[in-house]
Order: sequence, then C-alpha cells, then structure tokens
Amino acid sequence: MDIGFIGLGSMGLPMAANLLKAGHSLTVYNRSASKAHPLLSDGAILASAPSEAGRHSVVFTMVADDEALESVVYGDKGILASMPKGAIHVSMSTVSVSLAKRLTKEHEARGQQFVAAPVMGRPDAAAAGQLRIMAAGDEATLATLKPLFETLGQQIIVIGSDPYMAAVIKLANNFLLVSVVEAYSQANALVEASGIDPEKYFECVSSVWASPMLSRYAKLVVDEAFAPGGFKLELALKDVRLALAAGEGAKVPLPLADLAKQHLMLGVSRGLGEKDLAALSLAVKAAMGLD
Amino acid sequence: MDIGFIGLGSMGLPMAANLLKAGHSLTVYNRSASKAHPLLSDGAILASAPSEAGRHSVVFTMVADDEALESVVYGDKGILASMPKGAIHVSMSTVSVSLAKRLTKEHEARGQQFVAAPVMGRPDAAAAGQLRIMAAGDEATLATLKPLFETLGQQIIVIGSDPYMAAVIKLANNFLLVSVVEAYSQANALVEASGIDPEKYFECVSSVWASPMLSRYAKLVVDEAFAPGGFKLELALKDVRLALAAGEGAKVPLPLADLAKQHLMLGVSRGLGEKDLAALSLAVKAAMGLD
Amino acid sequence: MDIGFIGLGSMGLPMAANLLKAGHSLTVYNRSASKAHPLLSDGAILASAPSEAGRHSVVFTMVADDEALESVVYGDKGILASMPKGAIHVSMSTVSVSLAKRLTKEHEARGQQFVAAPVMGRPDAAAAGQLRIMAAGDEATLATLKPLFETLGQQIIVIGSDPYMAAVIKLANNFLLVSVVEAYSQANALVEASGIDPEKYFECVSSVWASPMLSRYAKLVVDEAFAPGGFKLELALKDVRLALAAGEGAKVPLPLADLAKQHLMLGVSRGLGEKDLAALSLAVKAAMGLD
Amino acid sequence: MDIGFIGLGSMGLPMAANLLKAGHSLTVYNRSASKAHPLLSDGAILASAPSEAGRHSVVFTMVADDEALESVVYGDKGILASMPKGAIHVSMSTVSVSLAKRLTKEHEARGQQFVAAPVMGRPDAAAAGQLRIMAAGDEATLATLKPLFETLGQQIIVIGSDPYMAAVIKLANNFLLVSVVEAYSQANALVEASGIDPEKYFECVSSVWASPMLSRYAKLVVDEAFAPGGFKLELALKDVRLALAAGEGAKVPLPLADLAKQHLMLGVSRGLGEKDLAALSLAVKAAMGLD
Repeated sequence: MDIGFIGLGSMGLPMAANLLKAGHSLTVYNRSASKAHPLLSDGAILASAPSEAGRHSVVFTMVADDEALESVVYGDKGILASMPKGAIHVSMSTVSVSLAKRLTKEHEARGQQFVAAPVMGRPDAAAAGQLRIMAAGDEATLATLKPLFETLGQQIIVIGSDPYMAAVIKLANNFLLVSVVEAYSQANALVEASGIDPEKYFECVSSVWASPMLSRYAKLVVDEAFAPGGFKLELALKDVRLALAAGEGAKVPLPLADLAKQHLMLGVSRGLGEKDLAALSLAVKAAMGLD
Repeated sequence: MDIGFIGLGSMGLPMAANLLKAGHSLTVYNRSASKAHPLLSDGAILASAPSEAGRHSVVFTMVADDEALESVVYGDKGILASMPKGAIHVSMSTVSVSLAKRLTKEHEARGQQFVAAPVMGRPDAAAAGQLRIMAAGDEATLATLKPLFETLGQQIIVIGSDPYMAAVIKLANNFLLVSVVEAYSQANALVEASGIDPEKYFECVSSVWASPMLSRYAKLVVDEAFAPGGFKLELALKDVRLALAAGEGAKVPLPLADLAKQHLMLGVSRGLGEKDLAALSLAVKAAMGLD
Repeated sequence: MDIGFIGLGSMGLPMAANLLKAGHSLTVYNRSASKAHPLLSDGAILASAPSEAGRHSVVFTMVADDEALESVVYGDKGILASMPKGAIHVSMSTVSVSLAKRLTKEHEARGQQFVAAPVMGRPDAAAAGQLRIMAAGDEATLATLKPLFETLGQQIIVIGSDPYMAAVIKLANNFLLVSVVEAYSQANALVEASGIDPEKYFECVSSVWASPMLSRYAKLVVDEAFAPGGFKLELALKDVRLALAAGEGAKVPLPLADLAKQHLMLGVSRGLGEKDLAALSLAVKAAMGLD
Repeated sequence: MDIGFIGLGSMGLPMAANLLKAGHSLTVYNRSASKAHPLLSDGAILASAPSEAGRHSVVFTMVADDEALESVVYGDKGILASMPKGAIHVSMSTVSVSLAKRLTKEHEARGQQFVAAPVMGRPDAAAAGQLRIMAAGDEATLATLKPLFETLGQQIIVIGSDPYMAAVIKLANNFLLVSVVEAYSQANALVEASGIDPEKYFECVSSVWASPMLSRYAKLVVDEAFAPGGFKLELALKDVRLALAAGEGAKVPLPLADLAKQHLMLGVSRGLGEKDLAALSLAVKAAMGLD
C-alpha cells in the first residue's frame, strides 16, 4: 500500500520501520528530517512537507500533541489540502477529544476519512510490533486498515464508529495510569514514613495485583529510578489536562484528575518534568512535607 | 499443636477448619457459638469465653474490628489475663496501627508474644488455604508459626520485627485497593458520560494492566454487580479511616484517602454500605451529577 | 468627551446612563439594539456595529465573556480596525488573563491603548455610581480616564501598569468569593446535619466577621433564596475556570478552585446554573449525601 | 456568687480577673499554680486540686483541649466527684462534640448541670470583657449564668438547649476561619505568582469584604507576620480535626476541612506549628511549589 507517515519520534520511527519491513511503500515526513535517515536506506521516500506525505491513500500521524497535529493538518503545507478524496488519515497520537471531533468533521467535509487509533505501549513495544491499538472510525475504513494495524500491534480493540471515542478511551487509560501512580506514591509514603521497608510493600502489591504494569511503576517509585525515558511527567500532566478537558466536554468533574494535576504541577515546578511519571512520587512526598 | 482460635466469621471459620484438618488440636470461641458447630464434629473444643481459648501456646484472633479485638483481649474474660507466659497471640484481622502497638506492649509486659499477621484474600481463598499472609513480629516466634501459616496461606511475606508494621502494610494495601476502585470509577464515568460503551474501556484496562484483581473490580463496576459479598463498602470506609489514622500517626496527610472517604461516606448515606466496594462507583457518579 | 460604549446588559446599561448623565457624548452598541432605547431619549447615538462605537477616543466594553469580547474586537466589524491611533479601549468585564495580554499587545501594535478595569458590584451599585474599579494600564492613560471612573465608581484601585494585572485581581476576587461561599455551605451543612438551627450559626458568623458581603451570601444560603439575579452560579463556574487558567499561566495549582469547580459543575448538572451562586450550597449538600 | 475557675492560660486568666473585679468570690485552679498569683492579691483563693475548685455552685473550665478537660473532670481529683448536686459546670474551651455529649450525660446522672459556652475572641478581648459567647444548655441554667456571661463578653448567643450544639457551632466557626485563610492564601499566591503586588490585592479584598476579621488575617499573610500569638497553626489543626470528627458524627464529609488539614499538617511538618494560623499561607505556597 502507498502510505504517508508523519512524525518520526521515539514511537513513530519504529512504527514506520515496521510498515516498511512489511513491504509497504512509505513517504515519510518529520520536522527535523535527519530522524528519517534510518528509513531511507530501507526504501522510504523523504517528503519535504506534510502535504507531500499527505498525497497517499493512507496517512499516519504520530506527533507530540494537539499543536503539532494541527500544524501538520491545517498548516500552510498541511495534509488537509493535499489528501485525495477517499484517503484515510489515521491519527495514532494522544490528542484532545475536541481536536478529534474537529478533524472528523473537516476531513468528512472534503470527502476524506478520519480514524483515531491511539496506542498503549512504549518504544520497545512499538519496535516489536506489540502495541495495543484502540481504534475508532468508520467500520469499512477500519477493515481496510486492519492489516496495517496487525503489522503495528499485537491487539486491536475497536472502540466505536466515531473517532473521538478512541481519544476519550486513550485519555481515560492515561488518567487511570496517573491515578494509580499517585495512589501507589501516597501508600508508599505512608509505609516509608511509618519506618517500614518499602521493598516489603512492593512485594505485597506485586503479589496481590499481579500486574506487570503496576509492578513496573511501583518498582520505579521504590527504586527512585526517575531517569528520563518511558512516560515523561510533563506528558502525563498534558494528558491529565486533556482528560479534564474531556470531562468538561462531557460535563463530568474528575476530582482525582484535579488532585493528580496539582501534584504533577508541583513536580514540574520542582524540575521533574523530564523525569519518568514515577517521579510523581517525589512531588507527592513534597506535598506531604516528607522532603 | 494446641491452638486457640477466636472469631469464626466468613474468614475465620475456613481458616480454623484448615488448622483442624492439618491435625492440630483446636479450642475455638465465637460470640455466637452456633457458628462453631461445623468444627465440633471434626474434633474442635468449644470455649465458653475467650479466656478459655486463650489458655494455649498459640491463640489466633480473626475478628471484625478494633472494638471486637479489644473486647476479646481486654474484656472481662479476655485472653490477656489467661494466656500463659511465652504464649503467642497471632492477630490476623485488619486493625489499627495504634491497637497493634498497644497489644505489642501489653503482651510483652506479661511475658507473652504478639504477632500481627493480616491476610489478603476472600473466603474462598481462606477455604483453599490460599491466603497471602503479611506477618510481623519477633523472628523466632515467626519461625515457630511458619508451619501454621503454611497451612493457612500460599504466601507468607515477613514485613519486619515489629507487629505494627504488618498493620500499616495491610492498611496501605486496602488504601491502594480503594484508590484504584475510585480511579476506575471516575475513568469509567468519563467514558460513559462521553457516550462510549464501558465494556470497551473495560477490555482496554484488562488488557493493559493484566491484573486479575483490577479486572475483577472493574467488571463489578461495569456490570453494576454490587450485591453484598466480597469487600463491603462500609468496611472499606472503616479501613480508609484506619489508613488516615495511620497517616496521622506518621504525620503524613493522604489526600487520596480523604477523597475516597468523602465518596465512601456518600455511598453509605445512600444506603450502599452493605454492598460491594465496587458500589463506590455509584457514589462517584452521584458526586458528579450523573445520577 | 466622545465615548463609545459597547455592551448594555444589566451592568453596562446603568454605567452608560451614568456617563451620559455626566454630560458625555455617547455612541452605544449592543447586539440586540432594543436594549439601547432607554439611552437614546437621553441623547445617546445608536451604532449599528461595534466598529462605529469604536471610532472614538475612548471605547468602553462591558460584555459577557471572552468570546463576546473577541467578537467585538476582532470580528468583521470589530473595534480593533476602527479605533483611531491614540484611542483607549477600556475593558470593564471579567476576562481571561490571556485575552487581556493579547489585547494589550494587539492594541499597542496599532498605536492604541488598552486598559483593563473590571469592577466589583452588582447592578444596583452600577446604577448608583458606586462600583469598585480595579484598573491596570499605562499611568498617563489611567490619569485621562480618572474622571470617567469617578463617574462610574466610588473607589478606584490602581493595580499596576500592565492590564493583565487587573484581570488577575478580578479573578482572584471572584475565586475568593466562591471559596467563601463553598466554605460557608460546608460549615452550614455540618450545623444543619447536627440538628442545630442554621439561623444561630448565621448570627455567629455575621457577628464574628462583620462583613456585609459575607452576611449577604450566608443569608441567601440559610434562606435558600436562590432565585436568579445577583451572581449566577454558571458565571461563577466560568470565573473559577478562568482563575484555574490564570493559575496554569502562573504555574500555580489552586486546589480550592478545583474543589469549587467540582461542586459548581454538580450544581449546573442539577439545573442550578441560572440560580444565584448561593445555590452552590445545594450542590455541596448533594455531594455530602444530604439531599 | 461562689465560683470555681479552672484553667488560667492566656484566655482563662483575664476572664477570671474580670469575674473577680465584678465582685464574685473565686476559687481558682491551674496545673502550674504560679499562673494564679496575679489573682490571689485580688482575693482569689488558690485550690490545690480541681476537686476543690469544683465545690462551688458554678465551676468554669477554660483549658487547652479534650485531654485537659477530661483530666480536670474525670481525674483522680476531678470535679465530677466534688461538684454539689445542682451545681453548674460551664465549659468555655473548644472541645469535641463527643466530649460535650458525654459530659452532658454524666453531669446529669449526678444531678449536676453542664453548659457549653465556647468563646470567640483573643486574649485582649477577654481582658476587655468583649468576648462573644456561644452558649448552649438548659434554659433556666443559662438564665442563672447570664450576669456572669455579661461580665465576660459583649454578646451572648444562645444556640440551643443541648450543650453539644455550642460545641458544633464553635467548631463550625473555626472551620470557616481556617477555610477563609486557606482561600486567601491560595488567591494571594496566584496574585504573587502572576507578578502582582500583593498589597494591591489586600486593598481590594479589604474594601470588598469590609471585615475586620478577614482584613486582620489577610494582612498577616501579606506581611508574612507569623510570630506566635493569636491563633496558633497547630491549634487550628486540632480544631479542624475536631470539625472532621463532628462531621463523622453527623455523617457529613467536609472536603474543605480535609484540604485544610493536609496543608496544616504540611505546615506543622515544616516547623510552623507554633506560628499564627496565617502561616498556613507558607504551607499553601510549599504545596504549590512556590517556595
């Protein structure tokens, strides 16, 4: 298939590589072109603007945030103008519910398709083609995309027929993740402040919950292993804000998101924005007077 | 071994039965004696007061709350007065940190041993001898108890040498559980209020976290299956209060426990106290205006 | 002085009338022109578009929210294009800090002046020329405006030289007001739920604080007098959101604003949006399970 | 009248002095007897135990907290045993609702009267006989006490016929005070973090609310004048805990009290416990990352 791929960051690059390996013809674009080099030797074509990558029947976007996606779609050389009728824009990043709704409407107005298909999984899962993909959009369109999704991920969950639905689910997932890290941070602080070895608590939690995901973050908290990588605290803050905005849209207050936002903001103000989300535990301790 | 066993509720009864099956000689006590009948045919001796069950080298207690434990220990015919020197009191219920500290001190003053060994697991796990036991106390004493713990549980985690430590860990476990149910309830409400099938969100969460524990509670929330049984909402409120009290003792504020307490209190005032903890999701929705 | 006045709602109309009475020549604009009629018989000129009202040396705006102000300034027939060089735009409504900053920059780029001068006081105070005006902007410009402010208000507090400063102060004022109503609502609920006459608590609070403002809102809470009028709950929610946005801009989390927002959203979802802010007390009770 | 007076701290001493000046015969008791010396030269009799002061028809207590009051009443040489039938115990300190209820019952069982009459006002108001007294108890008993209350205070508000009612009202008052200081602290932090002179905000708030009480605390926050004296932060924390306990008793969650408690605990852990309640603003800033 002739595919455009925009956004070659730590997630986008291995995803594009997998599509290439699966035999697809790829035209790639990234704001700093040098990131594309590893793909070019494998046959990818480098586009000099998003609009060039947009001239294909399927265009993936995997960019940092709403602002980046808006620029790629609506900018001077954006894909909205260059995409052919009937072409599909597959947005795989985490974006706001309102942008998902706007893109749905504006692609539709031009006879194009929009699919939201955000992913769960880190760069190593992306490289292994082991992502979890939560897709929402027109049923037939999703059927067309199925082989591509199977190249990228181990599991595809179809959320519904309206793309914004996948955006909500992704934000609800990240909201839950941040809340669990917040909860573990507080529980762990109680344990430590009570003079108990946090490793013992970690052992209990790992055993009771038997969740690789929970154990991973809990271990980072206990080991104070906050080096950059994984899910950055400032991105978690961004996503919590998007979850709150989604809540505003659905007229739902989210007190836990408010609480996590307060602590994430404290974390950023203490210089932890680039650290792993697990560094939220430091902000939690600071708010408790344990520093 | 000659064992006293006090408290034959939904957890204590199967635990006592397992000790009996393992060949130990049991003297049992329960406030309403009829609960003891199934054990008597298997050879257990019925005590007419806690003090009688207390006259053995090891005395287990598995009662409802601090008040019940205080009455069993300090009451008119309590075990404190009847336990021989060198005997061990093994408290397996969830109790306050302050009571754990007080029992440690007062048993010690009489030359007795106190061990806190609260458990994770429901009545079916108790019946199967598959509990998780978090034990804290004197090292040699724990070694003595090891075969008994192995009869009762699949895993013994030694938390430390001071009994209060196990009390803190148990409360931290339950605080985490309540927090996760609170978080899932809020995320689920966002999903529903956004017009999305909550089953889809459940599917994503189950997949991402891969935790039987999380999936069990999330399913109860999605199915609105709140019938009594499992972990009652009013007991969760009791444990959150104990966690807050433990926080006060350690000078640690726990904002998430405060938030959960507010919603659990709302749940109780709406008549959900006897329902499963998962009914917290109803209180969360009410606080959001979604009812 | 030749003055343009845009926005003739419950606040703007009496303010414009006072300027007219003081002998100024007024060109007025309102989206629904009929609101202007009372002024025309006193000599005001009716503009058919904001741009017409904008062709004067001083242009006041007193509109509902950011959106209305943006339309009046940046719209097709907005004042930004029509205002002469050196003219002054005096914004007296409650607007976001970011819009205040943007207006400052864009008026400056065209050689125009921008002053933010939000007010405290209700329609009756506006009619009596008894508003409190919090003004921020260029010192000389404020000196020019002083006689006009004295016509409109009893007290002018100069906040600083940058207009956004008055926007922050206004939001901080309203945030404090909402917080105090939230606090009184909770305290009052405790009193009522304890079986005590809320009038007695009102009497104590009135006496201890001796604040007409606090007593007014407390009385509305006690009397459950929530009929529309005064400060509407949904406008309070809008302002709390603007305060939170100002907090985001200044990197300051505001947990009390988060809490009030949760209860205000609950109030709106229970149909109280049009009621007085004092109706927040009903939402607070609902969140407590007291309804 | 023959009066016993127990508790000669910064409040009790000037109150006792006023009763003496008004011609009453006083038997006084204080844990450290030296505090009583100024009164002895004016004719007061020094009791060597609470029981001695308790042998009068009216006994005032003005002590630090529940623990102190329990010791004075129930202790070895407590007043419960020494008070004559028909005598009145007037508790003027801030105590828990549950202790107020217990004292009501136990005094009644011995044919004695119990009145709760907590006060608002600082030591200078106590010295000037300008306290505000919130009294609850038997109507005829209150009538008997009226002349004494008029000697001590400028205003007597009769809350109801059951003593616990005055305890609730006092806690609701202090809860409101702490909440207002919390709200002002947050609003003030927003103003400062936005680069605005906090004096300007203080000026607006003073003008809008016109409350000497609010202005006093706001000024302390702005001036960072936290020297000991007035209402100590750790006592505010104690009272917030009592308000939360009152809420538990009335089945009312108080989220604002939870929030204030978190910040007051942070304040104590930062060594601010002895400072004025206004130092809560430092804890608020710390929790926001502004320190």
